[in-house]
Amino acid sequence: MEDANAARDTESNTEKLIDRYCAVWSQPDAAERERLLGEVWAERATYTDPTVHTDTPQALLAHIAGVHAQYPGMRVERTSRVDCHHGLARFHWRAVPADGVSLPEGVDFVRLSADGERLLSVAGFFGPLSRR
Amino acid sequence: MEDANAARDTESNTEKLIDRYCAVWSQPDAAERERLLGEVWAERATYTDPTVHTDTPQALLAHIAGVHAQYPGMRVERTSRVDCHHGLARFHWRAVPADGVSLPEGVDFVRLSADGERLLSVAGFFGPLSRR
Repeated sequence: MEDANAARDTESNTEKLIDRYCAVWSQPDAAERERLLGEVWAERATYTDPTVHTDTPQALLAHIAGVHAQYPGMRVERTSRVDCHHGLARFHWRAVPADGVSLPEGVDFVRLSADGERLLSVAGFFGPLSRR
Repeated sequence: MEDANAARDTESNTEKLIDRYCAVWSQPDAAERERLLGEVWAERATYTDPTVHTDTPQALLAHIAGVHAQYPGMRVERTSRVDCHHGLARFHWRAVPADGVSLPEGVDFVRLSADGERLLSVAGFFGPLSRR
């Protein structure tokens, strides 16, 4: 029972961390994005998706700023539960532009810091994964 | 065009590497599994799924041996294309026991060695990811 409770706590904490990370992406103000990212991002954390690889928070913030420039008012919403084990997690998300028409859904694969409080790396993939 | 060709080559090479990795899991003979794993597994590579975390090839081979003991004649089949970028990849797979009744599908997230020839880490998740 204690193990099950601990696993639930971990999942709940990780879910909150992921939602704070998604809030960084959804935040229209650049200074506020930087503040929010600083609370969830581990030193030397990396972000990688099909369009970019960054290994500094500044580079990630510049990338997010570019996405906001292209899609003003866009938000990122988590669309699945957060599935985590051994300090690893996966979740689905979608980017919703201000006009409400969703971009293709993506999945992020995440590594957590040892204390579970920050993100060590985020690797994103876009769209569904087609059958072979 | 050259970039597109290079991307296709990478995807094709990574697909072959992933299939050789799945063949390790499908191989019933322990000595042959060890030989095949040695060809695709980077030094100090890690394997993690909801049931186990291993950081040596010996520990992974022992884990696979346990799965074969539980499901004699089982095979692991890749069920999606391999989606890769920046030395990262994802693919779906399923474990098929000898009686042909598939276990729940999983997804593996993979990091590749710099030369793309070996696996640096494999992180597996089981089953579909439920909506929030």
